[in-house]
Amino acid sequence: MPSIFSRIVAGEIPAHKIAETDDYLAFLDVMPTTTGHTLVIPKKEVDYLFDLDDDLYIGLMAFAKKVAPAIEKAVPCLRIGVAVVGLEVPHAHVHLIPLNSMADMNFHNKMKPGQDELAATAEKIRAFLD
Amino acid sequence: MPSIFSRIVAGEIPAHKIAETDDYLAFLDVMPTTTGHTLVIPKKEVDYLFDLDDDLYIGLMAFAKKVAPAIEKAVPCLRIGVAVVGLEVPHAHVHLIPLNSMADMNFHNKMKPGQDELAATAEKIRAFLD
Repeated sequence: MPSIFSRIVAGEIPAHKIAETDDYLAFLDVMPTTTGHTLVIPKKEVDYLFDLDDDLYIGLMAFAKKVAPAIEKAVPCLRIGVAVVGLEVPHAHVHLIPLNSMADMNFHNKMKPGQDELAATAEKIRAFLD
Repeated sequence: MPSIFSRIVAGEIPAHKIAETDDYLAFLDVMPTTTGHTLVIPKKEVDYLFDLDDDLYIGLMAFAKKVAPAIEKAVPCLRIGVAVVGLEVPHAHVHLIPLNSMADMNFHNKMKPGQDELAATAEKIRAFLD
């Protein structure tokens, strides 16, 4: 069965998209630790980050570096933190998290913003990528 | 004043080194969240990860991908997690953390292993890089 992220890539599940290329997609985490918390994924479904082939891995990290400054400009924060955990969804994903304190990296403090709020946040971030 | 990591690079402060190239260094975190918790840094002192120029950033991530499998083989874990926070030491560093649960990513649960234990862990990891 395809991962929930592959279903987002396929358009079967809606997402608040931030940026997209042939190989990668960035979209808002629906249960963010902070406003603007974004997931960056390879479209190819590979469970473990370090199992990605070198080119796809490097491309993913380069894509994250392009997306991060837009989040940083759109959301009040000190900087963008990065996390890859991978114990839940079996499809490699990089968390880009606007940080104001260490607590913002705590995956036990998740918010549940409404769809309107997520849409507004995504629009703000996208404006800095245009 | 140089960062504590620049002082490690310069050899002024000892560290349990895992791997080193002209541009990058990997060494054990002395206050790990789990055994084998490793820091990967560019030798060049740049505070914020996303301020690294593209080549140095990509090289850092590629270096992390080379080091991670050795940690994974040396330490019992499900996989290697990645975190970049950067609110403490002003010298970009990638945490590579052996994960058995989400709790292992919690930076509030730090251990204080002795020097002998750190040396033994570093030796085990290095053996998988040779």
